[in-house]
Amino acid sequence: MNRFMKLAFTEARKGKDTWKNPQVGAVIVKNQQVLSSGHHETYGRNHAEINALKHLSDISQAEGATLYVTLEPCSHFGKTPPCVQRIVEVGIKKVVIAETDPNPIVSGNGIKYLEDHGVQVENLQQKNDLNVAYRFFHQHKRPLVTIKYAMTLDGKVNQTKGVRSMITNQEVFSDTQELRRQSQVILVGENTFKVDDPKLTVREKEKFPPIRAVVIRDVNSVDLKMQIFQTNEPIYFFSQEKSQRELPENVQVFVDEWTPTKIVQKLTELGMQSLLVEGGSHIQADFLKEKLCDRLIVYLANKVFGQGLPAINGPVANLKFSKPEILLLADNLKITTWRLD
Amino acid sequence: MNRFMKLAFTEARKGKDTWKNPQVGAVIVKNQQVLSSGHHETYGRNHAEINALKHLSDISQAEGATLYVTLEPCSHFGKTPPCVQRIVEVGIKKVVIAETDPNPIVSGNGIKYLEDHGVQVENLQQKNDLNVAYRFFHQHKRPLVTIKYAMTLDGKVNQTKGVRSMITNQEVFSDTQELRRQSQVILVGENTFKVDDPKLTVREKEKFPPIRAVVIRDVNSVDLKMQIFQTNEPIYFFSQEKSQRELPENVQVFVDEWTPTKIVQKLTELGMQSLLVEGGSHIQADFLKEKLCDRLIVYLANKVFGQGLPAINGPVANLKFSKPEILLLADNLKITTWRLD
Repeated sequence: MNRFMKLAFTEARKGKDTWKNPQVGAVIVKNQQVLSSGHHETYGRNHAEINALKHLSDISQAEGATLYVTLEPCSHFGKTPPCVQRIVEVGIKKVVIAETDPNPIVSGNGIKYLEDHGVQVENLQQKNDLNVAYRFFHQHKRPLVTIKYAMTLDGKVNQTKGVRSMITNQEVFSDTQELRRQSQVILVGENTFKVDDPKLTVREKEKFPPIRAVVIRDVNSVDLKMQIFQTNEPIYFFSQEKSQRELPENVQVFVDEWTPTKIVQKLTELGMQSLLVEGGSHIQADFLKEKLCDRLIVYLANKVFGQGLPAINGPVANLKFSKPEILLLADNLKITTWRLD
Repeated sequence: MNRFMKLAFTEARKGKDTWKNPQVGAVIVKNQQVLSSGHHETYGRNHAEINALKHLSDISQAEGATLYVTLEPCSHFGKTPPCVQRIVEVGIKKVVIAETDPNPIVSGNGIKYLEDHGVQVENLQQKNDLNVAYRFFHQHKRPLVTIKYAMTLDGKVNQTKGVRSMITNQEVFSDTQELRRQSQVILVGENTFKVDDPKLTVREKEKFPPIRAVVIRDVNSVDLKMQIFQTNEPIYFFSQEKSQRELPENVQVFVDEWTPTKIVQKLTELGMQSLLVEGGSHIQADFLKEKLCDRLIVYLANKVFGQGLPAINGPVANLKFSKPEILLLADNLKITTWRLD
């Protein structure tokens, strides 16, 4: 990879609170010298290009310089003014991008604006592992759905029905925290919700914490003393019944005869780019049956239960998955596989 | 590792038909020059040391030479005369061994005989991965028990009850063939036997093929047209009832109220060093319940069945397993873990 673009990618990864925005990095170069760099830090704030320009010791340095940026610069007024306008204004001569923006509001328009204003654009069309959910969302017009569970070497997720079993180790716990952090919505089914009484939070306080979603027959059956109500990250209930009670401010109830397809449609309307289905085994089967599983993550504990609840419990569609990626987490295993068709 | 001993290990691995005997390699060295090498080729034939001596251009070369051998030379009359006697006879000055022989008939006696006859002995006490079952058998006085199954990413071994599902790929098939080849006994339960109608053979014809064992309530319920009877490798039936029929010559029926413990005792009496329990999920649970699982091998296919028979089906003992070893077999996974306690 071009060394300046490599640097731009390193910058991009620094953006931790970009939420629905992509992680983007930018580097300004003149005479093969890096003059400045920047990244998109936080949703709603300056884009990477603007930050790189701000980090120049003098804005006049931009005149005739080349801008390396990991994503096509934006051409629209969103939370901030369009970057392309500023790029032209300060006299950047050439823009090298790693890929076009999959967001249809931008896609190609940024490049066109720059070229129309005499800026040379080079598109490296470089595959990269940034912004997986952002890219998926704009390409498929729905959130990336990840199904995740932990099971034993004999495929059990629980030793005794109705009791939560601790299956995996501390390293898996940390990894699932990171997985939650990267998800805009975390969803569980009614049984998992009532048996596990989960918080569904991430340990580190986030600016844009994942929304905690629960699929439930009747929201009125929920005990308001449950752990999920002890913190104020947003909560969605997908319920068949309207709430008869006043609920805390952070709770929203959506009422319908919910199916995975309908839930995903609703989340699409709400602009959610990523959904993590954490359990249990019935709702995960329901998602798999409706072919709503783009990524499957299985944590494998080196234990054998013999009896207990199986991972995935119900008829599923016949899906093909990619060659698995393996990560050894101490004596546990993380298996990641992507749906192929 | 000492380079001559390394060579001896390379030699040892060439022995493919050693069966109940260990794989052993030997190298004869003088003035830092390798004069000859040899390995134990076939159960009942010459040991490695004798082969190495035979490969000298002249037996007088052995006078004053050093012998590197991966296992303590034997001191007893078995299928062949004791190696130590021949070593002394030809004038070997020094013997370097990688480990003492765990077989109590030899263990330490080979070394003692050599030293008593003026041969210097150096024991490197080198851990190695040869002769795992042989070592286990002599240390624990019973065969090494391996439980092996193939399952989907959601822990199912079968999609529809009573019908055999092909779960894994060609690479796994080859790997399980090798696993069978390394086992002295392959065992299945009644249900697997009747549903799968397996041959339980290895593809390449072997001098000492694995014995095919079936646990069954009543041996008289077996259809003699089944595939297992189409080849003449030995067959053991562990049955509660005596056979009322004349059975083929290669079939032996053992009658008792069989449990895994009793089966393992019987195999120990028969001198069997390794047992591969291939299925199904009930008999594997029975073995796990009686703590008769030293090694667990799970092949993981990148499929999701949702419903079907779970891997391991019944109460098991609470066993601890080692950090798993992982092997990627195309888009399938091989997970090997050892019992810790």
